[in-house]
Amino acid sequence: MAAELPKKQTPLALRKPGQGNTLVPITPDVCFGGEKLVLIGGPCAVESQSQILETALAVKNGGGVMLRGGAWKPRTSPYDFQGLKEEGLLFLAKAREATGLPIVTEVLDPRDVAIVSEVADMLQIGSRSVQNFPLLREVGLTNKPVLLKRGMMTTVDEWLAAAEYILAAGNANVVFCERGIRTFDSTLRNTLDVGAVAVLKQKTHLPVIVDPSHAAGDFRYVAALARAAVAAGADGLLVETHCHPADALSDAGQSLTPEQFAQLKTECSAVASAVGRVL
Amino acid sequence: MAAELPKKQTPLALRKPGQGNTLVPITPDVCFGGEKLVLIGGPCAVESQSQILETALAVKNGGGVMLRGGAWKPRTSPYDFQGLKEEGLLFLAKAREATGLPIVTEVLDPRDVAIVSEVADMLQIGSRSVQNFPLLREVGLTNKPVLLKRGMMTTVDEWLAAAEYILAAGNANVVFCERGIRTFDSTLRNTLDVGAVAVLKQKTHLPVIVDPSHAAGDFRYVAALARAAVAAGADGLLVETHCHPADALSDAGQSLTPEQFAQLKTECSAVASAVGRVL
Amino acid sequence: MAAELPKKQTPLALRKPGQGNTLVPITPDVCFGGEKLVLIGGPCAVESQSQILETALAVKNGGGVMLRGGAWKPRTSPYDFQGLKEEGLLFLAKAREATGLPIVTEVLDPRDVAIVSEVADMLQIGSRSVQNFPLLREVGLTNKPVLLKRGMMTTVDEWLAAAEYILAAGNANVVFCERGIRTFDSTLRNTLDVGAVAVLKQKTHLPVIVDPSHAAGDFRYVAALARAAVAAGADGLLVETHCHPADALSDAGQSLTPEQFAQLKTECSAVASAVGRVL
Amino acid sequence: MAAELPKKQTPLALRKPGQGNTLVPITPDVCFGGEKLVLIGGPCAVESQSQILETALAVKNGGGVMLRGGAWKPRTSPYDFQGLKEEGLLFLAKAREATGLPIVTEVLDPRDVAIVSEVADMLQIGSRSVQNFPLLREVGLTNKPVLLKRGMMTTVDEWLAAAEYILAAGNANVVFCERGIRTFDSTLRNTLDVGAVAVLKQKTHLPVIVDPSHAAGDFRYVAALARAAVAAGADGLLVETHCHPADALSDAGQSLTPEQFAQLKTECSAVASAVGRVL
Repeated sequence: MAAELPKKQTPLALRKPGQGNTLVPITPDVCFGGEKLVLIGGPCAVESQSQILETALAVKNGGGVMLRGGAWKPRTSPYDFQGLKEEGLLFLAKAREATGLPIVTEVLDPRDVAIVSEVADMLQIGSRSVQNFPLLREVGLTNKPVLLKRGMMTTVDEWLAAAEYILAAGNANVVFCERGIRTFDSTLRNTLDVGAVAVLKQKTHLPVIVDPSHAAGDFRYVAALARAAVAAGADGLLVETHCHPADALSDAGQSLTPEQFAQLKTECSAVASAVGRVL
Repeated sequence: MAAELPKKQTPLALRKPGQGNTLVPITPDVCFGGEKLVLIGGPCAVESQSQILETALAVKNGGGVMLRGGAWKPRTSPYDFQGLKEEGLLFLAKAREATGLPIVTEVLDPRDVAIVSEVADMLQIGSRSVQNFPLLREVGLTNKPVLLKRGMMTTVDEWLAAAEYILAAGNANVVFCERGIRTFDSTLRNTLDVGAVAVLKQKTHLPVIVDPSHAAGDFRYVAALARAAVAAGADGLLVETHCHPADALSDAGQSLTPEQFAQLKTECSAVASAVGRVL
Repeated sequence: MAAELPKKQTPLALRKPGQGNTLVPITPDVCFGGEKLVLIGGPCAVESQSQILETALAVKNGGGVMLRGGAWKPRTSPYDFQGLKEEGLLFLAKAREATGLPIVTEVLDPRDVAIVSEVADMLQIGSRSVQNFPLLREVGLTNKPVLLKRGMMTTVDEWLAAAEYILAAGNANVVFCERGIRTFDSTLRNTLDVGAVAVLKQKTHLPVIVDPSHAAGDFRYVAALARAAVAAGADGLLVETHCHPADALSDAGQSLTPEQFAQLKTECSAVASAVGRVL
Repeated sequence: MAAELPKKQTPLALRKPGQGNTLVPITPDVCFGGEKLVLIGGPCAVESQSQILETALAVKNGGGVMLRGGAWKPRTSPYDFQGLKEEGLLFLAKAREATGLPIVTEVLDPRDVAIVSEVADMLQIGSRSVQNFPLLREVGLTNKPVLLKRGMMTTVDEWLAAAEYILAAGNANVVFCERGIRTFDSTLRNTLDVGAVAVLKQKTHLPVIVDPSHAAGDFRYVAALARAAVAAGADGLLVETHCHPADALSDAGQSLTPEQFAQLKTECSAVASAVGRVL
C-alpha cells in the first residue's frame, strides 16, 4: 500500500564517506557551496516597484550578488499585510532586469509553485513550511534550486529529513538556511544556532547559509551574528535590507540600511578570508 | 494593496466580556463545548478496512463517540508510510456506516480539502500545519468543523491567531486541541501544557480538547494525562487506540488497547463528574 | 581518590520491582505518600508576625494542614527583599504554636541548615538550588524531611539524581515538588509538567507534590492546575496564600486569598475522591 | 527590615552611556577585556599531579595563557567522581609554578571560598551555581576576579542580575562566560548562544568569554564554535584540553588534544585579526 514511495535508502542529503561539497549554481556567476560565499540582500516583503528597485540597487552596490524579497508573506495574523503576490513577482522580475541580480522568493502554497517558479531563480521554503510535506514535494518536482529555512522548532535531523522530501522528488539543488531557533530566552527574536551550521557542514554535502536578520530581530546585532556564521563555516548570508527601515511593512527593526549592509559585507569579507574563503 | 484582506478587528476567536461558550456540533448526538465531554478514539493511521472497522467497534464499545484515523499522514521522513489516502477515506466511511461514529481525519494539502470534506465530519489540522496559512484559509472556506491542533512550539497567542485564519474565512466551528509542546525535557514525547487549556478556556469562547497520546508518547502515561486534562477543564479527549498496538504502522508505543481505552473512559468520567461535567 | 564516595549502586530513589510507596511523616497527623493528600498553604515570604499568623489561621480554616513561608528568599536581583531570615523563623514558630500547623521553609545556604532545622518541620530546597550539591548533602545529614523542588531546567532524571545526594547522605525522607518548567511559551510564568508527576509516581517510591502557584504565576489559573495535579496522581499541593495579596512583597499576582484557597480545597477534594484519594 | 541591603540603584554591571570596557587583570601579562583575547586551556577535572602538569605544559605550548581545571566537580550523580578537592588545588598550584600560567578553578560551596581563594588566581562560578546567591555574595567579598558561567537556562537579564550580587558585595572583577544553553535540540550538548555575547558586549562594560567545549560536547565542533565566538566579539575562550582524552574521568568526548588545541589557537588568531583583535 506504500508502493508508490521510494524505497528506504541512505538519505540523499547525507554526506557519504569521502564525498565532497555539492555546488548549487544559480547563474553562471552565483553558486552556493564553493570557495566564494553568497551574500543575499533585500527586504522582508516586496512593497512596491520603486522600493524593490531601490533596494536591489543598494544591495548590488553593497556587494550583494542575489536579491531576496517576499511576494507571499506568511503572517501570524490574517489581519496583517500578506504580500503583493503576483504583482510582487513582477516587481522582482523588473528589479532583476535592472540589476542583474538573481531572485530568491518564498512560495507558501503548493498551488503557487508553478507561477513562482516562472519568475524566481530560487524558491524559498520558509520556517513555518519546513514540514509542509506537500509543498516540499511540489518544489521537489521543479528544476529550481530551493532555499530551505529551518523551522523555529526543527531539530537538525528533522531538517535533513525535510530536505529529503525535495531530494527524493528529484530536485538535487537544496541549500539549507539556519535562521535561529526558539528557546526560553527572548533577549533576541531567536537564538542563532551556529553549532547547527557546523554539524550540517559535516553531515550533509549540500550548502548551508545563515539568515542573521531573523535570528537577531534587531539591526544592532545582525553584523555580529553574520560574522559568527561565516566563522562557523556558513556558505552564505541572507540579510534583510531596506532603504527606509522605519517605513517597512514588516520586520522593520531588523532591516539594515544600505550603509549597514555594505559595512556588514566588509566585516564578513575579513572573517571569510580568515577561514580561507572569499566574500 | 492589501485591499482584499478583512479589516483589522477584534479577533473572532477571543471571548468578549460576558460571552458564553460556543457549541460546535458534529451530529445531533455529538457536540463540543457543552456540559458533555467528547471522547474520540481511533488509530494514528488507517491501515486497512478490517483494522479501522475493528477499532471503531472497540471505540464505540469503550464509550467513545467519535472516530479518528489518518488517511494522509505527515511523516518526518519521506521513506515512512504516508497513509492510504483516498482509500483510507473509504475505509473510514465504511467504519462510520457500521458504527454510527462520526469521523475526524487530517487534511494536509489545500488541494485535498474538497475530497476530504466529502467524507469527514470534522477536518483535523495537524501540529505541523498550525501555521500553514493557505491550508487554514481553505478549511475556513468549507462548512466542516475544524479540529486545530497546537504546534509543538506554538504559543497560545499564535495558536489563537491561527484559528483566526479559519474564522476570518467564514468558518465559525473551530475546536482547539492541545497535544503537548516541545521542551528541553524528553522524558516523555512532549510536555502536556494543561495551563494552556486553562488559559484558552478563559481567552476564547471556542471548545478546547486534549490529545494525551501524542503528549505522552507512552501508553503507560496516557490515562494520567487524560485525567489531568479533564480536571483542568478540557471539553474532550482525542485518544489513540489500536486493537493490536504492536502491529501499528506508526505511534505503536502510545496506542491504548480497547481495554485500556475503556478503563481511561471510566477514570475520566469520575473526574468529569468531580468538575461538574459528564463524560 | 574518590574513596569517600558511596559506591555505585542502584539509586535509592528508584522504585524497585514490587516496592510500595514510601511514607514521609511530618507529624502524627500529617504524612506524605498515603491515601490522604497534603495541602500546604502560606505566603511566599514571611513579612511580619501578624502577616504570617493571620495567614496561618486562614490556611487552617481553609483546610490546609501545613504552613509554608520563606524566611530566606532567593531573589533574582540583590536589590530585592531577601527575607527576614532568623526573625522570620521566629515568626513561623509562633504561627505554628498558635495553629498547630507544621512548617516547611526554604534553606538556601549550607551554613544555615542547622539554624533552620531547629525550627522547621520540613526543609525546602528551592528550584534554583536543585543542583546545589553541597546544600543537598548538608540537608541529607539532618533528620528533617526535605521538600525538593524541581529546577526550572531540570530533567526528571537529573531531579532524581539530585534527590540521590540527600538519600545517599543518610536522609530517607525526600518529597518531590513539581512547580513548572521553563519553556518557549511565556503565556504563564512556567509550564506545569503533569507528565513528570505521572512518570515520577512510577519511577520513584517517594511522594510527589505540586506547586501550582509558581507554575501559573497568576491566581486565576492556580485552581485549574491544582485540580490537574491531583488528577494526575500528586500526593499533595503547595499553594501560595496571602490575606492581602496586593500588599505582598513578592509573588503578589499568584497568591490566593483565603476564600480562593478554601474554594481550591473544595474543588481538589472532589477530584481527589474521583481518583480514589482523600483531601 | 531589609536595611542591610544596598539601596536600589542603577545596576553596576550595566554599561552607562559612553562608558568604555572594564579591564579585569589576572596577572601583569593576562588581562580580560582589552584588545588581546585570553585563551584558557586545561582539563575538566584535575585528576593527578602528572595529568595537570602535562596538560598545563601542553596548554602553554599551544598558546594558552591561563590554566583551568576543576578540583571540586559538580556532578549530576553523587556516585560520580567529585574531584580531588584540596589535593587538586595543590596540584594546580604546582602546575602554575612549573608553567607560570595563572589558574582558574571552580568553587561550589561558600564554605570553600576561603581555601580556594588562597590558591586560585580566578574563581569560577559554574553553570549550576549561577543563581546560588550565598555563593555569589561570598565570592563578592573576596578580592579575586570571578568567572561567572551562564546557567543552562539563564536569560541574559538574570545573568546580569547574578553578576550584580558579586558586584554589590564589593568585587568589581567579574567576567561572563557563555557556555551554551539548553534547548529542544539535543544535536549538540548545548546550543551556543553567540547572540548573547553580542548583546552582553553592548549591555555591560565587563568582559565576556565563551566556553565552546561545553556548548559542543563533541571535540569535532569545538573549533567552529570557538571561531564563531571570536567573530561575535568574545574577549576570550575557555577550552577543555586533555593529553589523553580517552582516559578523562569526565567530559572525555569534548576535550581537545594538545594538537587540536594548538590548531584552534591558530584558527582563532586569524579570526581575531579579522575583527581587529589579537589572540
